[in-house]
Amino acid sequence: MTTARSVDIVEVAPRDGFQSINEPLPTGEKIAIIEDLLGAGVKRMELGSFVSPKAIPQMGDMADIAAHFRGRPGVRLSVLVPNARGAEIALRHGYPELVFVLSVSEAHNLNNVRQTVAQSLDQLRAVVSAAQGEAIKLRVDLATSFDCPLDGTVPMGDVRRVLHEALSIAPDAEIALCDTTGRADPLTVKSRFETAMQDAPGTPFAFHGHDTFGMGVANALYAYEAGVRVIEGAAAGLGGCPFAPGATGNTATEDLFFAFEQGGISTGLDIEKLLQAADRIAALPGGKTGGHLRIVPRKRAFA
Amino acid sequence: MTTARSVDIVEVAPRDGFQSINEPLPTGEKIAIIEDLLGAGVKRMELGSFVSPKAIPQMGDMADIAAHFRGRPGVRLSVLVPNARGAEIALRHGYPELVFVLSVSEAHNLNNVRQTVAQSLDQLRAVVSAAQGEAIKLRVDLATSFDCPLDGTVPMGDVRRVLHEALSIAPDAEIALCDTTGRADPLTVKSRFETAMQDAPGTPFAFHGHDTFGMGVANALYAYEAGVRVIEGAAAGLGGCPFAPGATGNTATEDLFFAFEQGGISTGLDIEKLLQAADRIAALPGGKTGGHLRIVPRKRAFA
Repeated sequence: MTTARSVDIVEVAPRDGFQSINEPLPTGEKIAIIEDLLGAGVKRMELGSFVSPKAIPQMGDMADIAAHFRGRPGVRLSVLVPNARGAEIALRHGYPELVFVLSVSEAHNLNNVRQTVAQSLDQLRAVVSAAQGEAIKLRVDLATSFDCPLDGTVPMGDVRRVLHEALSIAPDAEIALCDTTGRADPLTVKSRFETAMQDAPGTPFAFHGHDTFGMGVANALYAYEAGVRVIEGAAAGLGGCPFAPGATGNTATEDLFFAFEQGGISTGLDIEKLLQAADRIAALPGGKTGGHLRIVPRKRAFA
Repeated sequence: MTTARSVDIVEVAPRDGFQSINEPLPTGEKIAIIEDLLGAGVKRMELGSFVSPKAIPQMGDMADIAAHFRGRPGVRLSVLVPNARGAEIALRHGYPELVFVLSVSEAHNLNNVRQTVAQSLDQLRAVVSAAQGEAIKLRVDLATSFDCPLDGTVPMGDVRRVLHEALSIAPDAEIALCDTTGRADPLTVKSRFETAMQDAPGTPFAFHGHDTFGMGVANALYAYEAGVRVIEGAAAGLGGCPFAPGATGNTATEDLFFAFEQGGISTGLDIEKLLQAADRIAALPGGKTGGHLRIVPRKRAFA
């Protein structure tokens, strides 16, 4: 094979990671970590959420962080918005790449955002309206696309239905099927993405996973096998859904680096700098090391 | 697809697992754990090693354990033997299924068994001679088939050469490519098995992995993708090579169960009983929980 293979890793430590830490982190430390991640070659990152600080206090300094990184060239910095008001704030702060989350599982959506799935789809419609006329990029995260912390296995029929409705509202969106609890298994991940891609040919898909059952890396590789080229990770494996009890952190970016790069699939990341950023994240109060990679791999074994 | 898919999991906790614990475990407790594993539906198991107790004190009660399980129907119980003398002892104890280990890496083989690879191949020849005329089954474990704790990445050319030499001595052997350090990556595992299977068509292959870099489950699945149908695991993720510093435990049998069974690939194991056995192993002095699965999966998501 002469075709260079690559994958885009979206770094979510500043959003899904930081919000998993209860104690408010100093804004300067957050900015320093984000700078370290950018220095490690991260090309896509979720910078944070424009949400009510009452809902997620850790995101109370979002405006300051947004101001610091506004217009940074060479990197796609997205922000999570829960509704039209969040979208307006994001656009006003100069962030036209928006992430909207809704859960496929009714029970989880009610727990997570206190809305039914239908109400969340209305919110998505309002976000799209609020951004009318702006050159935005929209990502829709379908949380609990595999397993729900409350209801167990989520039927694929439900995923297909919510996917269909989301795309009818936002036909140009990038769609992430999210393993919110980290209880998906690799072959099911592959199978569900294949089905979703048949349902929505041309739609760009992404995978967001957690490592609860030790399947994080395998799930990411099987998503890649299905054709997914956008995979989310968090340096140091930080993260965890506050409304998904028992779920551990996001799959560690450094573990994804190892699995992809050693397999000949380029990530564009500098592992030495990435591990330094991961160490800094793991050393945060309330931080932890969920990643497995400790040393810089010596060389590629794949040939 | 209507073809039932399955995988044979070889349980190695009683051998690779127990030997990783320094403190001698009571023989009765070892026997009870092995009974629990058999009760969980294990159909192949490495019962232990007929080695000098000076080399591995934990195996000092091997004869007692062997006597207890001798002739147990419905299960293949193998024993590791380091040389012809070990093979003779195993056969005398009624164990005709033998495991012989040598490392592809010269440096690791010297560290592990104080012999060059050529000397180890001579030992293999002596084992085969010692078993002449007996209806034995022979497994040859090629340790460090991917990565060496001393020399780093092991060239595939070396693996092919040692594989070729081992099969010229023991043409009917089952061959395991072992990721001794747990630093192999999934795509390399698949690629190396594909090459080995092309080199030795008809030879049954197995994969033995550790979870050091969090790749354990993914490596096993990619071995399966290459066509490997025999995968080793240790309940509770026990294990670790005493001569591979930094390597963590074997990939946990319960994690393998989850990845395969949820993906529609049958293991024949009873997860409830397996988790009970894993809990008992993790509670041993010097034991640990390296597995990720904590609850019995609710139902298969794969469809």
